[in-house]
Amino acid sequence: METVRVALDARSYPVHIGAGAIDAEALYRPHLRPGRIAVVTNPVVGPLYLARVRAALARAGAAPPIEVLVEDGEQAKSWPALERVFDSLLGAGLGRDGLLVALGGGVVGDLAGFAAAVYQRGIPFIQVPTTLLAQVDSSVGGKTAVNHARGKNMIGAFHQPAAVIADVGALATLPERELRAGLAEVIKHGFALDAALVAWLEKNMGRLLAREAAALTHVVRRSCELKAQVVAGDEREAGARALLNFGHTFGHAIEAGAGYGVWLHGEAVAAGMVMAAELSARAGLLAAADAERLRRLVRAAGLPATGPALAPERYLALMAGDKKAVGGRTRYVVLKEVGRAALGEDIDERWVREAIAASVDGAPAGASR
Amino acid sequence: METVRVALDARSYPVHIGAGAIDAEALYRPHLRPGRIAVVTNPVVGPLYLARVRAALARAGAAPPIEVLVEDGEQAKSWPALERVFDSLLGAGLGRDGLLVALGGGVVGDLAGFAAAVYQRGIPFIQVPTTLLAQVDSSVGGKTAVNHARGKNMIGAFHQPAAVIADVGALATLPERELRAGLAEVIKHGFALDAALVAWLEKNMGRLLAREAAALTHVVRRSCELKAQVVAGDEREAGARALLNFGHTFGHAIEAGAGYGVWLHGEAVAAGMVMAAELSARAGLLAAADAERLRRLVRAAGLPATGPALAPERYLALMAGDKKAVGGRTRYVVLKEVGRAALGEDIDERWVREAIAASVDGAPAGASR
Repeated sequence: METVRVALDARSYPVHIGAGAIDAEALYRPHLRPGRIAVVTNPVVGPLYLARVRAALARAGAAPPIEVLVEDGEQAKSWPALERVFDSLLGAGLGRDGLLVALGGGVVGDLAGFAAAVYQRGIPFIQVPTTLLAQVDSSVGGKTAVNHARGKNMIGAFHQPAAVIADVGALATLPERELRAGLAEVIKHGFALDAALVAWLEKNMGRLLAREAAALTHVVRRSCELKAQVVAGDEREAGARALLNFGHTFGHAIEAGAGYGVWLHGEAVAAGMVMAAELSARAGLLAAADAERLRRLVRAAGLPATGPALAPERYLALMAGDKKAVGGRTRYVVLKEVGRAALGEDIDERWVREAIAASVDGAPAGASR
Repeated sequence: METVRVALDARSYPVHIGAGAIDAEALYRPHLRPGRIAVVTNPVVGPLYLARVRAALARAGAAPPIEVLVEDGEQAKSWPALERVFDSLLGAGLGRDGLLVALGGGVVGDLAGFAAAVYQRGIPFIQVPTTLLAQVDSSVGGKTAVNHARGKNMIGAFHQPAAVIADVGALATLPERELRAGLAEVIKHGFALDAALVAWLEKNMGRLLAREAAALTHVVRRSCELKAQVVAGDEREAGARALLNFGHTFGHAIEAGAGYGVWLHGEAVAAGMVMAAELSARAGLLAAADAERLRRLVRAAGLPATGPALAPERYLALMAGDKKAVGGRTRYVVLKEVGRAALGEDIDERWVREAIAASVDGAPAGASR
């Protein structure tokens, strides 16, 4: 078992990583409270892991938890789903002295985390992420949210978990497509923050796709370390944390433009990173060879390196509604070199249009050069 | 103009109190941001004060605000109302760099404050309370919430305002019944925390009911000072802040038992305080004469000193669902003397039943002695 610590004063917490972590009652025990526990999960993850969480909690000395099922997929990140969670918690008498456990991927973590953030003005929660995306990214850092008809993650809170229990063994049951989608965020951490991780990925992508436990543990741990550092320095995304959004401004436009649920978040981020690297090259910030290196790694992970063939104007309109916009201007995260992201300044909209046109389905090969 | 400071490190903020504060552009100016402003109000308060807020914002140099109307009354503290606020904000393109202004009483403040807490994971907001209850209590301290079918204020957040602008001149248009309801929280601050305030109220109730500006300014300022001290020491109600709930456990049972909207919150708190004082006397903590002193002051303010004639068991059941319960046990705030509240320990349920029976409509006069 390896443990990464997210240092946030009174809100600091451990991220435990390793095969079998889900069964380790000692990881839950320090976080038990006088009140009840509710485990929030979905009909896909529940049958696979809920009994193990229940058994670990029992060994830790907790009473049997309330079990709350939400729908599978992005539609669970909605007001109605949230209301059903609140109904279950209130109906079962879970009080302000209770505890939530989010068992599942990013959707369950975002939803249950937001429920914990606002239930009776906030109760603690434990993240038990079961997808690679959630283990390397969404379970760490305290971003929680639900979607709104007018945009993704528009309603939410910063609410740090009391602990993260990331069992890489749970990735054995993950659908191939979701494994690849999780790798997109690992690639993001490398290109935005850590050239050594990029080099490691270029050598070891095969081991990851084969789900070798040691390789998975390495990328989960390294991703959590990188993210923990950034979050510790900027919990509420006033500055450096925005660099973790590398690929996400374009990515959110891809998700919205294609219709939510058509692209997985990680897939959209993959193509979005390629666009952001293209933009960086056009802005004269990044060598074209490094943009190409990103594109190669995205493809090696079996991820899309191009976005849907929408007009650049459509992308621009979708990005203008992104909540990262400031004073009405879209903020772009660019690369200055491999492993060094920065906030784009004086970005010419013409470059953005060109970067998009060069990176959508059907764009002429080598359009970036 | 008088200013009380709520000291919460990076979340510290000023509470400005005085006649005409609503028009003082200098009070808004330090809090303007690059993005848009939205003023949330209701059809009762809007026609009276919205134009003045708009004019003050214009003098402060802000662009015309988005105006969002919510229903009048407690029904506005609901998910659907919240969704309509989000729709308006997103539709108008208010971004994470925007600002909300809550113009109205406790309902508008709680709703708009919660909207600000979770809109795009949190944006700042200014409280412009226009009722006495909001000025002496709910606008200060960062408690925000909406109701759930299963309980009041069940979904919410601690989200401190950037500033509070309390114009006692706005109390001129307040319905008599709401003025009296606000006085309940002033009486609460006195009995829970400040014997001198109780003595002052015993002498000056007539001036308050006549809406004398100097008298109103005095109780608003003193209430905010007392509340600011408590909140600074215990922002999230882990300890001492619970003392501000004096009368509220019984009060919430009264509100719920009578059906929400039948009793005003302050009216329920008034009768609830009498019950809590009765309980304190029965527990041997408070002199019967001091419980009587509270009852007299409540009556002097024109507030109810007895709750609806429900069975004590019904009260107990309603209180067990209160979110202040810990480990399934209802927590009572008791009085040890006038101006000194404490958390009740070893409270015998028999005393609670007796205190209720002695303080409901139709109880025999002098049942407490």
